[in-house]
Amino acid sequence: MVNSFKFRQLEKDNYSKARTGYFETDHGVVETPIFMPVGTQGTVKAVNQNLLENELKAQIVLSNTYHLYLRPGAEILEKAGGLHNFMSWKKPILTDSGGYQVFSLAGLRKLKPDGVEFRSHLDGSLHFFTPGKIIQIQRSIGSDIMMALDECVPYPCEYDYAEKSTKLTSNWAILNKEAFENSKPIYGHNQTLFGIVQGSVYKDLRQKSAEDLVKTGFDGYAIGGLAVGEPADKMYEIVDFVTGIIPENKPRYLMGVGRPENILEAVERGIDMFDCVMPTRNGRNSNLFTSTGVINMRNAKHKDDFDPVDSDCGCYTCRNFSKAYLRHLFNAGEILALELASIHNLFFYLNLMKQIREHIKKGDFSKWKANYILQITYDNKKHQED
Amino acid sequence: MVNSFKFRQLEKDNYSKARTGYFETDHGVVETPIFMPVGTQGTVKAVNQNLLENELKAQIVLSNTYHLYLRPGAEILEKAGGLHNFMSWKKPILTDSGGYQVFSLAGLRKLKPDGVEFRSHLDGSLHFFTPGKIIQIQRSIGSDIMMALDECVPYPCEYDYAEKSTKLTSNWAILNKEAFENSKPIYGHNQTLFGIVQGSVYKDLRQKSAEDLVKTGFDGYAIGGLAVGEPADKMYEIVDFVTGIIPENKPRYLMGVGRPENILEAVERGIDMFDCVMPTRNGRNSNLFTSTGVINMRNAKHKDDFDPVDSDCGCYTCRNFSKAYLRHLFNAGEILALELASIHNLFFYLNLMKQIREHIKKGDFSKWKANYILQITYDNKKHQED
Repeated sequence: MVNSFKFRQLEKDNYSKARTGYFETDHGVVETPIFMPVGTQGTVKAVNQNLLENELKAQIVLSNTYHLYLRPGAEILEKAGGLHNFMSWKKPILTDSGGYQVFSLAGLRKLKPDGVEFRSHLDGSLHFFTPGKIIQIQRSIGSDIMMALDECVPYPCEYDYAEKSTKLTSNWAILNKEAFENSKPIYGHNQTLFGIVQGSVYKDLRQKSAEDLVKTGFDGYAIGGLAVGEPADKMYEIVDFVTGIIPENKPRYLMGVGRPENILEAVERGIDMFDCVMPTRNGRNSNLFTSTGVINMRNAKHKDDFDPVDSDCGCYTCRNFSKAYLRHLFNAGEILALELASIHNLFFYLNLMKQIREHIKKGDFSKWKANYILQITYDNKKHQED
Repeated sequence: MVNSFKFRQLEKDNYSKARTGYFETDHGVVETPIFMPVGTQGTVKAVNQNLLENELKAQIVLSNTYHLYLRPGAEILEKAGGLHNFMSWKKPILTDSGGYQVFSLAGLRKLKPDGVEFRSHLDGSLHFFTPGKIIQIQRSIGSDIMMALDECVPYPCEYDYAEKSTKLTSNWAILNKEAFENSKPIYGHNQTLFGIVQGSVYKDLRQKSAEDLVKTGFDGYAIGGLAVGEPADKMYEIVDFVTGIIPENKPRYLMGVGRPENILEAVERGIDMFDCVMPTRNGRNSNLFTSTGVINMRNAKHKDDFDPVDSDCGCYTCRNFSKAYLRHLFNAGEILALELASIHNLFFYLNLMKQIREHIKKGDFSKWKANYILQITYDNKKHQED
């Protein structure tokens, strides 16, 4: 692979697999462990690019191949000079391959050895994704990190189906790699490709999948097919198992995860990268993350509470506005509510990652993590009793 | 009246009644002619306060007594220390009295000599607004400029009804003034009160109304009951007539107006202050104002147009994003579309006012105005043909 992508480990925790590091792309350096705000359609919902960069200090955002392929389409993105130009975002972008969306969102899927046929969730039109096609679209997008096409199976999943599916994903991974090596970036900056480990909750399948992918060889390894309904303990077990197989000198990305406590547990098990719609989606649904648990801004008890959402928080929302004002905005159906809540929640997530990196560096990650989880889960219980 | 409100005229146009000036409040100075972004419920829709102040350089915003009274209510606003604190806005605020909303939005109105009974458009609850009550609520809000309670009649309106209504508004104006003089600001900053001239499209009624109000005496005079469906020429005629009666040394405010060409014509006829939902509402409906007319961002022709909305515009939207990206955001139902469109349109309006002030100062207002209107209306015709 000819590309400029580099991953370096820095500090390692003495008591767990947690680690800090960074990776380099042509659009800049990203410190790990990192959380990637989700900009599915080329925009992080309700948060503009200036806030994302200068207020939230987001180091990388995630966008989605399936969605961008359907709208605005690869042709428009190419004419725009790629997604960075199109959305006016100068920092790194990772694109999910769309595998997850094809299997969760699109209609009438027909799985074939060389790809997947599906109908657009927007207009029912028929499309066919192959590993080669997915690379081609991500070349048009120009994402710094591209993801391989995989089949994401639901939970629970019969062993036999999971086994067949994992084989398919391994075969596709080889085709993805070939398509990557036989194509070039369009916009003058390098792109790299990550593989996705599948295998449902079956350790032998996860092991086979991880070994297959490592044999094919990628610049980073994602764990897919988790956070799809399985118990959290099962997710942690699989994460711990897979990070024991994929190489230490490559970044490890747990896709679509998750709640703050999920992220902390996964970092402890060696994960470097995360993405999740939770901070923005829950924010738009008036649920705000704080260092003492989640609060629902629509709750009547906030109506004359003139404290910020979180007194310890330094975000734009907490620096300027009260819970009473936010409750009013949600109550009145005002768009500003969605923005202020999304800003706060993304700040919370990105600040959580910053604290994680600091505590790994300081050497007290595991102890700090345990207290942190106790605090947010204890208070969540308290909030639920209100 | 004991208050710190001061209005000063600066330059006068040689060929029309257009003039520049400024007024002072305890929250700062406002240059006139001015456009006030509308923040009905204590937020300018889709635009946060930081953008409003630092990106758009808004000098004053308008909010609404009827809406704030119903939600969050005067009690919450008092506990918050007034609307400035509640919404975190340090510059001046003008509040409309709610007269217009009672007569356009609320249900089951019952007009009485001492006030108006109505049902909330939110929950059907019964309320009674009197001139005294309206002042009291605006004391709780703490707006720098309060508006008197008036009856706003629809267009067309029978002469007899308009006559009766104008008398009522004049009587209420006296009661408003008394309530104002018999009450005090709550939050340590001064507030002032403007009267509202009514009289539909009947010049003799407009004259009587203006004379009544001047006799009562206010720090500023608004013209209400226009832009309610009458032809534009009729509106200009009434504006011209009324600005000939109300004193030159007080600011004149044309309520709820309007399109850029309406504002230009009204400035020429001596108006100093404007408010309108058009820049934000039309923006949210994908209609963007430009120096060459209005464009609809949903139009398919913009899909691969990578120029900004207006190449001459210096707003955040035009500095960073293309028409193709905005079209994509509108098409995809993204919240960012609403923000970027609202920013652009408000910037356009505030920049229009800045140009108006500069050209009055420079002495070429009328000539510049005529060309400007030709440009935007010529191109609007062109756009409509697309």
